[in-house]
Amino acid sequence: MTQTNRRIVLARRPKGLASPEDFRLEEVPLPAIADGQVLVRNRFLSLDPYMRGRMDDAKSYAAPQKLDETMGGGTAGEVVESRNPRFAAGDAVVGMLGWQLYGISDGSGLTKVDTSRIPLSAYLGSVGMPGVTAWYGLNRIIAPKAGETIVVSAASGAVGSVVGQLAKAAGCRAVGIAGGPQKCAIVAGEYGFDACVDYKAGRLYEDLRAATPDGVDGLFENVGGEPLDASLRRMNAFGRVAVCGLISGYSGQPMPVTQFRSILVNRLRVEGFIVSEHLDVWPTALRELAQRVADGSLRYRETIAHGLESAPEAFIGLLAGRNVGKQLVALD
Amino acid sequence: MTQTNRRIVLARRPKGLASPEDFRLEEVPLPAIADGQVLVRNRFLSLDPYMRGRMDDAKSYAAPQKLDETMGGGTAGEVVESRNPRFAAGDAVVGMLGWQLYGISDGSGLTKVDTSRIPLSAYLGSVGMPGVTAWYGLNRIIAPKAGETIVVSAASGAVGSVVGQLAKAAGCRAVGIAGGPQKCAIVAGEYGFDACVDYKAGRLYEDLRAATPDGVDGLFENVGGEPLDASLRRMNAFGRVAVCGLISGYSGQPMPVTQFRSILVNRLRVEGFIVSEHLDVWPTALRELAQRVADGSLRYRETIAHGLESAPEAFIGLLAGRNVGKQLVALD
Repeated sequence: MTQTNRRIVLARRPKGLASPEDFRLEEVPLPAIADGQVLVRNRFLSLDPYMRGRMDDAKSYAAPQKLDETMGGGTAGEVVESRNPRFAAGDAVVGMLGWQLYGISDGSGLTKVDTSRIPLSAYLGSVGMPGVTAWYGLNRIIAPKAGETIVVSAASGAVGSVVGQLAKAAGCRAVGIAGGPQKCAIVAGEYGFDACVDYKAGRLYEDLRAATPDGVDGLFENVGGEPLDASLRRMNAFGRVAVCGLISGYSGQPMPVTQFRSILVNRLRVEGFIVSEHLDVWPTALRELAQRVADGSLRYRETIAHGLESAPEAFIGLLAGRNVGKQLVALD
Repeated sequence: MTQTNRRIVLARRPKGLASPEDFRLEEVPLPAIADGQVLVRNRFLSLDPYMRGRMDDAKSYAAPQKLDETMGGGTAGEVVESRNPRFAAGDAVVGMLGWQLYGISDGSGLTKVDTSRIPLSAYLGSVGMPGVTAWYGLNRIIAPKAGETIVVSAASGAVGSVVGQLAKAAGCRAVGIAGGPQKCAIVAGEYGFDACVDYKAGRLYEDLRAATPDGVDGLFENVGGEPLDASLRRMNAFGRVAVCGLISGYSGQPMPVTQFRSILVNRLRVEGFIVSEHLDVWPTALRELAQRVADGSLRYRETIAHGLESAPEAFIGLLAGRNVGKQLVALD
């Protein structure tokens, strides 16, 4: 008996903004698993800004997403059949199985997770890649000292929200930049940042200056463009900038930086990073993140789209900032 | 008997490009020295790009040059009278005595130098602040490994010429960027860089690409603007960028950086620095630089203007790139 899988493939490379027509939903046969393999029913797809870069056929840190193949990406689900001694049916697992209902894995890159204290979906957010991204950039690049001021852009997002909460836990002043009053209310209220600047209010630099009376010692950059320039203008001597993402330019928009001079004048250290290249920190980071989520000291939000077919629109919405917190697709 | 000193003061703050009217030559009385002091007859003034920044009344790493006071700057000269036990008449010394014929010092910041193997003027260039600047940015920020490609802008200048020669000595491919065929001929010929790209030839990126077939691992940035953008486009993964100067923006020109994205895509580390904040490396660096100048393995050029009154025009020429190598004023 042949089972059927449903998946979304990249149908063509986007020109500028991604559009629904760049994707295609397919039904394909699901082969029987071989010895050593595991069949996983995905329950959540992780949508992340980095995927936009992979959709282009340009030099980047990751190989481009191939045309007519399943869109890659993080997944959380459960093992439904296993011919691998490390896994058993019923195991909750996270992996990189992509935009499809079922994934087959040889077990590499597949991790069993404990859902007794932490919901499965959180392993794609605060207790997963976005959380470790926040942890690495903050602790290993910015290395904050108590009393310093840390600014993070896209502060209501899956990464930014963790950055600010960890910075607060380290005794810092945490200032977020986010788009719109709703997101800012969550950042300053629910996540406990000291302040949040709404970049859509039209007074970005002035508002950031007011929110950072002692200047900025650490910047965790997710956006680029105007938020980056405003933050660079506020940097203190010997500040550190972790360049995690530049989402404002991901769809090919020009993104000139006018305040590069701050790097010289303030003797900044600016570092780009990709969390998957720092696997050594993952166990330490995940232990701390899991503990904080379990004890309620690290809060998060999720925006959940339902059904595989909703993934393209949800991804487009993510790039436009329409989500709050971690953007997921639930495969009910 | 009252002696007379001649000096150049900042008469007003430049708007944009510096002009001769921003400076004023004065004759002032030269006081007798007090106990503990040293009277120095300056023989050479060092002209350096950083001075332009100090002429503005803006936040920078150094306090602004005060109006109506002697222009600050490095000097080399000889002690003519000493009431300080560390110095004797006839000693060759370097210090920061500014744009004047005579300077009085309490000995702090004044260093005796040995002119038996190294000419006095070189202590303002390859064996002075510019040389240590090159040494620090290359060794402590770029940290080149043999076989890597190092690019330096303003490659014919006092700093850039040392960067490339030290990079060659470290087994690297050294590629310079300079303005015009004359400078490029010196960079590639006399200084022994592997290649020099003439940014005035109108094919900067294409020529740089051809000169860096394996990409760029280390960038020593002195200029900003188009050379910086072209170099950022050529960076390899995990490249290092030492931001030493951004002379193309020193007179207030806008200097947007379009290739900031390379910092993320290539996981670069970008660091601004000021050599005067790293006094710990000076002895080590100066020892190596002095040895290399003395044995002829580190070559340099000087552009020498004559007479105190020539300093403003020489400084304006330096900012416009009209010098080759270290720009000095000889006070004959």
